[in-house]
Amino acid sequence: MPCFPEIDRIRYEGPDSDSPLAFRHYNADKIILGKPMREHLRMAACYWHTFVWPGADMFGVGTFKRPWIKPGDAMELARFKAEAAFEFFSKLGIDYYSFHDTDVAPEGASLKEYRHNFAHMVDELERHQESSGIQLLWGTANCFSNPRFAAGAASNPDPEVFAYAATQVFSAMNATQRLKGSNYVLWGGREGYETLLNTDLKREREQLGRFMRMVVEHKHAIGFKGDLLIEPKPQEPTKHQYDYDSATVFGFLQQYGLEKEIKVNIEANHATLAGHSFHHEIATAASLGIFGSIDANRGDPQNGWDTDQFPNSVEEMTLATYEILKAGGFKNGGFNFDSKVRRQSLDEVDLFYGHVAAMDVLALALERAAAMIENDQLQQFKNTRYAGWDQPFGRAVLSGEFSLEALAQHAFDHELNPQAVSGRQEMLEGVVNRFIYR
Amino acid sequence: MPCFPEIDRIRYEGPDSDSPLAFRHYNADKIILGKPMREHLRMAACYWHTFVWPGADMFGVGTFKRPWIKPGDAMELARFKAEAAFEFFSKLGIDYYSFHDTDVAPEGASLKEYRHNFAHMVDELERHQESSGIQLLWGTANCFSNPRFAAGAASNPDPEVFAYAATQVFSAMNATQRLKGSNYVLWGGREGYETLLNTDLKREREQLGRFMRMVVEHKHAIGFKGDLLIEPKPQEPTKHQYDYDSATVFGFLQQYGLEKEIKVNIEANHATLAGHSFHHEIATAASLGIFGSIDANRGDPQNGWDTDQFPNSVEEMTLATYEILKAGGFKNGGFNFDSKVRRQSLDEVDLFYGHVAAMDVLALALERAAAMIENDQLQQFKNTRYAGWDQPFGRAVLSGEFSLEALAQHAFDHELNPQAVSGRQEMLEGVVNRFIYR
Amino acid sequence: MPCFPEIDRIRYEGPDSDSPLAFRHYNADKIILGKPMREHLRMAACYWHTFVWPGADMFGVGTFKRPWIKPGDAMELARFKAEAAFEFFSKLGIDYYSFHDTDVAPEGASLKEYRHNFAHMVDELERHQESSGIQLLWGTANCFSNPRFAAGAASNPDPEVFAYAATQVFSAMNATQRLKGSNYVLWGGREGYETLLNTDLKREREQLGRFMRMVVEHKHAIGFKGDLLIEPKPQEPTKHQYDYDSATVFGFLQQYGLEKEIKVNIEANHATLAGHSFHHEIATAASLGIFGSIDANRGDPQNGWDTDQFPNSVEEMTLATYEILKAGGFKNGGFNFDSKVRRQSLDEVDLFYGHVAAMDVLALALERAAAMIENDQLQQFKNTRYAGWDQPFGRAVLSGEFSLEALAQHAFDHELNPQAVSGRQEMLEGVVNRFIYR
Amino acid sequence: MPCFPEIDRIRYEGPDSDSPLAFRHYNADKIILGKPMREHLRMAACYWHTFVWPGADMFGVGTFKRPWIKPGDAMELARFKAEAAFEFFSKLGIDYYSFHDTDVAPEGASLKEYRHNFAHMVDELERHQESSGIQLLWGTANCFSNPRFAAGAASNPDPEVFAYAATQVFSAMNATQRLKGSNYVLWGGREGYETLLNTDLKREREQLGRFMRMVVEHKHAIGFKGDLLIEPKPQEPTKHQYDYDSATVFGFLQQYGLEKEIKVNIEANHATLAGHSFHHEIATAASLGIFGSIDANRGDPQNGWDTDQFPNSVEEMTLATYEILKAGGFKNGGFNFDSKVRRQSLDEVDLFYGHVAAMDVLALALERAAAMIENDQLQQFKNTRYAGWDQPFGRAVLSGEFSLEALAQHAFDHELNPQAVSGRQEMLEGVVNRFIYR
Repeated sequence: MPCFPEIDRIRYEGPDSDSPLAFRHYNADKIILGKPMREHLRMAACYWHTFVWPGADMFGVGTFKRPWIKPGDAMELARFKAEAAFEFFSKLGIDYYSFHDTDVAPEGASLKEYRHNFAHMVDELERHQESSGIQLLWGTANCFSNPRFAAGAASNPDPEVFAYAATQVFSAMNATQRLKGSNYVLWGGREGYETLLNTDLKREREQLGRFMRMVVEHKHAIGFKGDLLIEPKPQEPTKHQYDYDSATVFGFLQQYGLEKEIKVNIEANHATLAGHSFHHEIATAASLGIFGSIDANRGDPQNGWDTDQFPNSVEEMTLATYEILKAGGFKNGGFNFDSKVRRQSLDEVDLFYGHVAAMDVLALALERAAAMIENDQLQQFKNTRYAGWDQPFGRAVLSGEFSLEALAQHAFDHELNPQAVSGRQEMLEGVVNRFIYR
Repeated sequence: MPCFPEIDRIRYEGPDSDSPLAFRHYNADKIILGKPMREHLRMAACYWHTFVWPGADMFGVGTFKRPWIKPGDAMELARFKAEAAFEFFSKLGIDYYSFHDTDVAPEGASLKEYRHNFAHMVDELERHQESSGIQLLWGTANCFSNPRFAAGAASNPDPEVFAYAATQVFSAMNATQRLKGSNYVLWGGREGYETLLNTDLKREREQLGRFMRMVVEHKHAIGFKGDLLIEPKPQEPTKHQYDYDSATVFGFLQQYGLEKEIKVNIEANHATLAGHSFHHEIATAASLGIFGSIDANRGDPQNGWDTDQFPNSVEEMTLATYEILKAGGFKNGGFNFDSKVRRQSLDEVDLFYGHVAAMDVLALALERAAAMIENDQLQQFKNTRYAGWDQPFGRAVLSGEFSLEALAQHAFDHELNPQAVSGRQEMLEGVVNRFIYR
Repeated sequence: MPCFPEIDRIRYEGPDSDSPLAFRHYNADKIILGKPMREHLRMAACYWHTFVWPGADMFGVGTFKRPWIKPGDAMELARFKAEAAFEFFSKLGIDYYSFHDTDVAPEGASLKEYRHNFAHMVDELERHQESSGIQLLWGTANCFSNPRFAAGAASNPDPEVFAYAATQVFSAMNATQRLKGSNYVLWGGREGYETLLNTDLKREREQLGRFMRMVVEHKHAIGFKGDLLIEPKPQEPTKHQYDYDSATVFGFLQQYGLEKEIKVNIEANHATLAGHSFHHEIATAASLGIFGSIDANRGDPQNGWDTDQFPNSVEEMTLATYEILKAGGFKNGGFNFDSKVRRQSLDEVDLFYGHVAAMDVLALALERAAAMIENDQLQQFKNTRYAGWDQPFGRAVLSGEFSLEALAQHAFDHELNPQAVSGRQEMLEGVVNRFIYR
Repeated sequence: MPCFPEIDRIRYEGPDSDSPLAFRHYNADKIILGKPMREHLRMAACYWHTFVWPGADMFGVGTFKRPWIKPGDAMELARFKAEAAFEFFSKLGIDYYSFHDTDVAPEGASLKEYRHNFAHMVDELERHQESSGIQLLWGTANCFSNPRFAAGAASNPDPEVFAYAATQVFSAMNATQRLKGSNYVLWGGREGYETLLNTDLKREREQLGRFMRMVVEHKHAIGFKGDLLIEPKPQEPTKHQYDYDSATVFGFLQQYGLEKEIKVNIEANHATLAGHSFHHEIATAASLGIFGSIDANRGDPQNGWDTDQFPNSVEEMTLATYEILKAGGFKNGGFNFDSKVRRQSLDEVDLFYGHVAAMDVLALALERAAAMIENDQLQQFKNTRYAGWDQPFGRAVLSGEFSLEALAQHAFDHELNPQAVSGRQEMLEGVVNRFIYR
């Protein structure tokens, strides 16, 4: 018996459709820049946000009445939830999904139960993947919800907690490998501190470095071909999280010689909580060579916590997608909807409304960004703006032919007196709008 | 003729004094942890904030009527300003000062004039230093106010601007060397972007890397023994500044192999603008081995720009000072008052009120922090909290004896089930208050 | 059998005590400005934060293992919780407590059960109050946690939800009256919106106005002598909450003619989330004549959500207490610890550590503020600063003797040319520190 | 001789145009909802932002080399500036402009000079208005830049400063009346405080109340038919500004009986600095009956100061315009571009790029908002959502037929048990995007 009996498969109906249960822009096989939309976007639905969160917040209990969230046999409910999830993915027509270990299988009361439950559910997921054709964008382990992780997982003051986290990551990496996941994600939700008064930053950093080293070695040991991704977040639930943003992660990776081994999974809402634009985080990661994947959502510009709303700004997503295309597009990564319907959106159909609207936003953003690439006025402007650095003097400076003294002498001798030139910000903003509002 | 005829030298009068022109806590030669207060604190007054800023803001013109800020012969006024500054430093009884090249000498209309004016004023400063005994904490170059730097100095799209900045840094480093400065500071006030639409992050980062490399080589070439310091700031005047915070600077330094050559100068107000506590930035820099010096001020917790107010929280400064003492105290660094009196504090006596109150705050903070060190309950708590990592199992994990698989196997085999333990945050906060309010 | 068998009654041991389970400053009967400390401070412990919250956050389940939070008979556990609470209050030596209806009694599955359970527990509380001497600072109703309130209580689009909320407020007001509570509090946790797209601001405001009118009339009907208090908060759980801050509440009250009937309960953490200092909110409410009571806690300056930490800054609380004393001190209000121990502070002793340290902070703040009042240099400064308004010209202007034209003519005729005078901010900050660090 | 010789009049070329100096969407006389675009939008250019600001910021001097900003005869330059401004307005094809008194005329060294200079320039402006057909959207007085206003204008501790401000407002109101301005604006840029330590909130509020009363009376005395508008801003340049946001202004107006006399001029960037969305401020003001006019710009979501960038989000402006149309559209108000080109946009052509792109954004937003009105799905959804309040029970509750007790009794008797219903946020966001991306 289907879980969503009143919903048919979502179809592309074109821009004139008024149905909130049809795509107006996402036409999966439409070719954009030589590739189908679906292959550019590699969109994924999130197990946790859509099937696990009950609609609770810090001031109120869950509002959702999902049939798979209720008292009862935990394993049976887990199987039911998986049925529901794959029915949802299929009806939505989304190609990928993502999960935490404890989203798909009951955690159990011991490592033995954990291992048993998870193994069983991986079998179930494999079966669902095969019958539906849905693929795994990434797997991960939840090493932050259980009280044992209150003071961190790898950065915990207790090495046994480190070891416990290691078992979960070991299991989840292996599951991801078996389910042919494209990436394995590490979000250090409690790798941070509540107060510096009880925290040894240096020790905890070394612990994290060691943990990541082990993860990298295990990836190679099992021959996992996907990417390892750290997901930066600045704070929440901790006061300060060590993987603050992409630049901070880059510093960490270099310190432990991992900058070629681990990339970042950038979440829009985490970027803005860190005081950056989403665009900035993507451009920064790309410029540092560590861009991996995207958690597509949005935060509320007036609220200081992770609201994980569905992306709904074509304007913002066009710039994000432009930046990703300029960086070569996704390799293993994709757009994962790390997004929840609001607590008041308590019907199951709201899950469809949220995803359908967001998938259309990404499809539109892809079309607009592709048009920007095809007539790349931003790139042309940059080429002109930095042209001096491609001339002999600029090249000589950059290649190290001048010492500071020699360069100062050159400037004195030539009586250099360079003047400011316009950066044309308003004109360029107009150019972008011309592509978005054709 | 003195510039501050109504002010006598500020003296230590002890805690019972009610005079706003006396120290109640700063007793320069008092021995704390085996060293005079003055040597712990190494306090400096800022040329720019105290002698150059006219009391203007974005919505109003200057309110200050300093005799050295008026129309007239620029060099004569510069000499007058230097007289005033050293009279101020001496009357205040502060041991150090700091300056930008263009604070002390008129910029001139050409590099030739710049070089000439600056050289003359360095002679003046040297003379003042000798006669007063005041020392230079650090020098720096202003590569951000002139319109030519609107799009950056080292990160400018025009290599001639890079070269122009090089001449200023070359001159200011040499001046700092000659004036026996303890450090040379680099604040990249325009090294950032206004919009990503016209910006090539990768190019600009390479330019910055090259520039810093040249600076390091020049330091060694001239035998400068002080520290080179980058001053992080997240934004303002730019939308985004590359030296966002200490962790970001650490990533940059590593990329160019400079993490042993350059440290950070941490400003309290910049820390909070970056979304961090001041305490965090110090602890982070110390844990990464790049802690150098402090720009002592405070921001307004409700305002989103650099207010550069004088530090007035003993509570905050005690934790900061504790962290610095734990990291070994200042080597070349010190507490530089990167602080301005408010635009309404327009009298010259207000300059004294601001500095005297702030110096007392630091003196008190030092005393409280020293007491915390002498009975280091925070450290004792941390030692216990992390004790597991000093035991054989923890050491084995950290030293790499376990692969991820082996560690997972160990956890399964031993049926590990570690539990959360209290972090005692409230108790520790009480401990700190017991030291502050003895 | 006691719930906290290892804790003795907390006693005043004086400033030299090193015990985290003794007061160093809170000496309940010490006379300050002619009144015992306890009567100035009127401190209260919160039922919800200390006995109901399980240590959960949005990313993890509860870490606390309280004996009264477990499966079992709900009423029996409620009685047990009340036992524990009053043992805690008594051992702590705090004079007041506060509660929501659903903190003390199980909500039940119907209004009938709700009424029955609550009535029974009010009997229990009355008994505990009598035997312990602990008093009720305020009661309130939780009209925000149950899913039915997801879209608001009084501002709900469904009038039946309005009516449901009315039953709770009716019951909780009556309970507060019977338990001799000093105030009745209204926090509109869901009175706001998630999105303007589905919200009619005008309608919802009218509903709120009507609700408050009914509450005021009921107060008079039952002869409740305490204060009615609205607790402002800007957002969270909603995107935007209507009672944003004190100034906003003042506008609302005036619109419905309630500005003489309802005051505000100001929470430190809510003030800062609204972009104000705690000091500001108190001073504003006092200046508008609507200051009522305080929810004493603190937020994290770097985190954008309600962290409800225990207050630990004597500096901040001294200014807050100074402002309250200047406004005449508390009438019915008091300092209610709307504060939670951190999720990692999972032991029951942590509840004591948190409260003891915070009570000491308030005691110290009271002493410092009293000293500021006794030698009121801030007031003297203000008197001089505004003296012109007490002169004939100033009085004439303020009393309306001049039209705009007449005043302009006066200025032209007298060639007025007033100049800025120093506001002496830094000097005054030094004055405050002299009182705090005597 | 024209000031912008290389710029022709900007023309509408339609959506396919690639020219940054043509309108693609703003077709002034196109009829939308029965009225020409120009009459809906009533767009204005700002004298200050476009002709007075020199491109300076807190860290650097001006980058613009405007021929009318240079040493020389102040009145001659003022006349030249007016020539340039009207040439600009005409070439841009914008219908309105706005000014501060001191933008258009030199302030002079005395009130006598002020009055003389301003009177002369009002003649000039009148002449320009007549010959060009450009109209005045609003005038205002700059009572915040001169040092005398450092501690406020009407809220200044010195009544002579109050009187000085009165002369400026008197003069600027009269000028606005003579120039047939549609509104008179009051932005209290220094009506706030830097520190509560020297501030008497109650006194200053009374002073402000008196001032506004005088302004209202003067309006009636001179028969000014336009609107008086207070422009809210939360902070900057002050730490806290009294006219924080629309809800705060509403409270102030009610206190002094002015809520029917004064409306608000809402600026997008001020809204976001106050922690609100621009949409929120408009909807709030409309719901309170005090919506007047708009300062169209945008802030930077990551920067905490007033960046005054040109609006460039059609998504944001569509919701703003929808709200304005729902409130009946502008009466006297309009969209004033309170927007500056970036400091790096130093060429005069950048002034055109900025305005042209922004005018197109507003034109598109108007078209999208009009389509939303014509098929008003949001309104239909709201009508259904709140339908219960239009039924007998809801009407009875709202009209006061129930006391709290009676309503509680009703709920008990009817065993009310209302349930949450979906707010459909995601569906509605999808609806909005369907209108924007048709």
